[in-house]
Amino acid sequence: MVDIISVATQGQGLYEFTEEIHRLVRRSGVQDGLCSLLIQHTSASLTIQENADPSAQHDLENWLNRLVPEGDPLYTHLSEGRDDMPAHIKAALTATTLSLPIHKGRLMLGAWQGVFCWEHRHHHQLRQIVVHIG
Amino acid sequence: MVDIISVATQGQGLYEFTEEIHRLVRRSGVQDGLCSLLIQHTSASLTIQENADPSAQHDLENWLNRLVPEGDPLYTHLSEGRDDMPAHIKAALTATTLSLPIHKGRLMLGAWQGVFCWEHRHHHQLRQIVVHIG
Amino acid sequence: MVDIISVATQGQGLYEFTEEIHRLVRRSGVQDGLCSLLIQHTSASLTIQENADPSAQHDLENWLNRLVPEGDPLYTHLSEGRDDMPAHIKAALTATTLSLPIHKGRLMLGAWQGVFCWEHRHHHQLRQIVVHIG
Repeated sequence: MVDIISVATQGQGLYEFTEEIHRLVRRSGVQDGLCSLLIQHTSASLTIQENADPSAQHDLENWLNRLVPEGDPLYTHLSEGRDDMPAHIKAALTATTLSLPIHKGRLMLGAWQGVFCWEHRHHHQLRQIVVHIG
Repeated sequence: MVDIISVATQGQGLYEFTEEIHRLVRRSGVQDGLCSLLIQHTSASLTIQENADPSAQHDLENWLNRLVPEGDPLYTHLSEGRDDMPAHIKAALTATTLSLPIHKGRLMLGAWQGVFCWEHRHHHQLRQIVVHIG
Repeated sequence: MVDIISVATQGQGLYEFTEEIHRLVRRSGVQDGLCSLLIQHTSASLTIQENADPSAQHDLENWLNRLVPEGDPLYTHLSEGRDDMPAHIKAALTATTLSLPIHKGRLMLGAWQGVFCWEHRHHHQLRQIVVHIG
């Protein structure tokens, strides 16, 4: 089964969509299998992180922004905006695809793990994540 | 088939568990398929690295510790200890899931590749890695 | 189905092999499924990046070379050359495996996404990428 999850982002940050994945897994009826995710963009990415304390997400975001700042004189790819090249680098350093085992009909995430779309651009975007369950 | 591999860690570093995966693949009887791994934690991660020379693992560990030091004034997520926020960042920069093809009943790893649990915290931990083979 | 794609690299940089994957997917006849990739090396890696504008690839390469320079006095793993330890670190920060959903017989990559072998060493290499389609 292949489906798409759309995540509407309003600027940089982590957007959790774990619940949408749980829903697709339940609907699929798959008991033992694999749920694979691909984000169809190169200026946003995927990450599995702690979803209990928002301060962890906040620090992740700030740390990565400091590591990959805008306006670095190294960049030559400038035509799509100041936040575009840093976004590509951040995407390369994090994940574009993830594979999540399913057992007895449920996603085998750890107790504190959530799945996030990590938006690296400032403008509002509609991010598409392809989900394969089988 | 879904199984769990437990890795007991004693502080920061890389802990190889390639042999445990080989064992599960053999036991599954799968000839052509996929072995997918998910570590159920956000302060430890997965990596595939050279397993021949321990100096490579040592340098990896030291390099990442220098890139993501403890005590950075940027961190606000401090409630779980000085090593917790750096651990989340390191996990985001490395892998939480991996997918390994199986051919003729064996994992298709390269000659020098080993699969490691990368512990980013100081205290002893029991890390759970979910393995799906199919 | 398990196959191997070989990518001949001539020094550091990103080498696209999206077309070779499309070809294997078509040949497999799989309509809804998953295409999983594993690069069998620890001094080269995989990445999904924008394939429209070469300046993005150029900046990615230069940025990562600045983050992980050769000749860092931290390195103790020196026996395989000055570019070897930085290559292992770069591989750990990017991807070794990828999972790409297939729908209606085609890879579900985004419009601007290409799949690349990221060579981190200077010498010519023949890099092997294992492809599982199922």
